Amino acid sequence: MRIDIITVLPELLDSPFAHSIMKRARDKGLLQVEVHNLREYGLGRHHQVDDYQFGGGAGMVMMLEPIVACLEKLQAERTYDEVIFMTPDGQRFDQKMANRLSMKENLIILCGHYKGIDERIREHFISMEISIGDFVLSGGELPAALVVDAIGRLLPGVLNDETSALFDSFQDDLLAPPVYTRPAEYRGWSVPDVLLSGNFKAIDDWRHDEALRRTQARRPDLLED
Amino acid sequence: MRIDIITVLPELLDSPFAHSIMKRARDKGLLQVEVHNLREYGLGRHHQVDDYQFGGGAGMVMMLEPIVACLEKLQAERTYDEVIFMTPDGQRFDQKMANRLSMKENLIILCGHYKGIDERIREHFISMEISIGDFVLSGGELPAALVVDAIGRLLPGVLNDETSALFDSFQDDLLAPPVYTRPAEYRGWSVPDVLLSGNFKAIDDWRHDEALRRTQARRPDLLED
Repeated sequence: MRIDIITVLPELLDSPFAHSIMKRARDKGLLQVEVHNLREYGLGRHHQVDDYQFGGGAGMVMMLEPIVACLEKLQAERTYDEVIFMTPDGQRFDQKMANRLSMKENLIILCGHYKGIDERIREHFISMEISIGDFVLSGGELPAALVVDAIGRLLPGVLNDETSALFDSFQDDLLAPPVYTRPAEYRGWSVPDVLLSGNFKAIDDWRHDEALRRTQARRPDLLED
Repeated sequence: MRIDIITVLPELLDSPFAHSIMKRARDKGLLQVEVHNLREYGLGRHHQVDDYQFGGGAGMVMMLEPIVACLEKLQAERTYDEVIFMTPDGQRFDQKMANRLSMKENLIILCGHYKGIDERIREHFISMEISIGDFVLSGGELPAALVVDAIGRLLPGVLNDETSALFDSFQDDLLAPPVYTRPAEYRGWSVPDVLLSGNFKAIDDWRHDEALRRTQARRPDLLED
């Protein structure tokens, strides 16, 4: 799988893809992440990528010409399944969307920054708008990193233990049950007896009950459909 | 404001805080972000921070002792308003929560990694559990960076133009209206005439109408209460 990220702040993305699971996915050749510096497509001597907004008001707007230049260069090289724009008014990202996107071949993710991007880019070039949640950030770079992480760990062979992702929260519409490790007793706080029992049937039952109990308490909406 | 982040992968957070608005906030002394390597509090010669989970199953669990050591060291130095754990089954992060947290003095954010953290940490040390959304990531580092970004940009003096954050999506329960910049015409796609009219009352009205229209189309839930 290949993901191309377009941003005015590529340096923000240096570390998130250089370590841990994302590094492993890239080292194994399972995930290719290419970060493109939009400024290389900027206009004129100063490589301008943003300008004041028409109608006045605070905040700069990302210009369409550099974005179009970058998009069309990439699209001339290969076919992309989606051209994604990260924006707080997009469709809410969730595990089902991550699952769906993890089966694509090539994705472009455009990160907004400053006040936003020229609306005509959204109208004519973007196929999918994704929001991470109802909050405002400095830019779409961290949300893009987050989407890549959520997708990347689903690619077969990326996680050490392939069963691991299947038991995560949300894969079965249940939150994950509590987990414990050594020591079994600490400051008088004990691990539930059943986990030390060696009775795997009882442990499975307990985990399922706890997952259900936690979901009912914290996220009853997940149980509704 | 001071935010202490506890993580097993501090290197993941190198770049997100080193650039752009977060850098400006730190340079101006408005936001102090300290990233703590949990491994420095690890047990034994190998600085162990995780172990197999009781009851069996895939994935390692973060041990409580290193976390307690780090938390108690920090809490001996100053009083923290919240000890936050980033977890997909926490309370959903949104702009209102960002606003509220931006008024605190000192926060600790604990990032989970691997399969999770020993439940006893959550029971006895965590005052607030925050989720970024219904999806699973490799760890809490990117979500923590995102929370710091959302909070940091609200601190007075961080953004160049103090009015800028006030007009973002969600601050008034409306999505932001479309924005445009030069050129006014591109491949036959034009900027709405009103934005070029110089009539600021008409522009304000248009923006409000567009914000309302977009919110009704994409997020009618925001208009409900």
